[in-house]
Amino acid sequence: MRVPVKLEHAYRLINHGPVTLVTAAHDGKENVMAVAWCMALDFKPPKLAIVLAQDTFTRSLVDGSGEFVVQVPTVSMLEMIDGVGNCSGRSVNKWEQFGITKSKAGKVKAPLVDGCCAWLECKVIPEEGIQERYDLHVAEVIAAWADDDAFKDGRWRDDLPRVKKSVHHIAGGTYVVDGQVVRADR
Amino acid sequence: MRVPVKLEHAYRLINHGPVTLVTAAHDGKENVMAVAWCMALDFKPPKLAIVLAQDTFTRSLVDGSGEFVVQVPTVSMLEMIDGVGNCSGRSVNKWEQFGITKSKAGKVKAPLVDGCCAWLECKVIPEEGIQERYDLHVAEVIAAWADDDAFKDGRWRDDLPRVKKSVHHIAGGTYVVDGQVVRADR
Repeated sequence: MRVPVKLEHAYRLINHGPVTLVTAAHDGKENVMAVAWCMALDFKPPKLAIVLAQDTFTRSLVDGSGEFVVQVPTVSMLEMIDGVGNCSGRSVNKWEQFGITKSKAGKVKAPLVDGCCAWLECKVIPEEGIQERYDLHVAEVIAAWADDDAFKDGRWRDDLPRVKKSVHHIAGGTYVVDGQVVRADR
Repeated sequence: MRVPVKLEHAYRLINHGPVTLVTAAHDGKENVMAVAWCMALDFKPPKLAIVLAQDTFTRSLVDGSGEFVVQVPTVSMLEMIDGVGNCSGRSVNKWEQFGITKSKAGKVKAPLVDGCCAWLECKVIPEEGIQERYDLHVAEVIAAWADDDAFKDGRWRDDLPRVKKSVHHIAGGTYVVDGQVVRADR
């Protein structure tokens, strides 16, 4: 079940560097794409940094709305993740093409992709220089959610079933699934 | 064995979002710290974005020299990774404390930490606004190396032995080791 995550725990949803899906909505249009280059930037208020390439349809929706959602998909969604990362919403209706269902977000117009294990609703903090020079965007996380079968009470479960695990993009359609959880001896 | 990596393949060394070690050197001093918030930013020339907190000794060395090395440690180095991320080089000689050996880099003064599986030598691209506001740094990767038992011919090996696998920081001393490699059906 999708449950709210405290904002001070939001960074933990992406701290392990998984591949993400980014949704955006503007002017009656919605799109979703895969983004590997996304990282936490601050704890409280939570911020993140993300690369949204200039030539993508999602970027144009983010430019128009100043909002987006970063979500963490699971290994169960591998073909969809790779698919939405390799076609453009300008020529394909990705929602139909990949059978993606979505839900309303709490604070932004961009939708939440169903079946993910975490969602971060983001508002762009305008930084025009780095947006133009590097496609690099800074955003504040204004709401966060998680599947409580995967992340509960501010923590990822250690004993995640494989279908709930997140994946990391290596390159060219190859991904690595989260493996063993280990703890340093503090 | 540590071998050079072509610059256009450098992003692949960190694309999966592993925890990294950052080394820097300035004015006769050298330090190393752990950094989870690091991501690729461009392919060619390769760039990366990284958060270097204002109050760290390593940050002061990066500010002084304009250079650093990002390296990808392995799960074998877990206690050291967590250790260098939780003390300051201002009060501890981390090299001695954690028994870390190092080698000379090719193009920067910062040393390479022995035993890692990848190294990216970086030169800061000055972006004072985001450095001050978010501790966010943009850098060009000017040389890259990999352990050829882990990464060869521009690719991570699929059959990495556990000791060569990289880890991702979840939070508070908990990490997840890379698991199964999967391929989307392109």
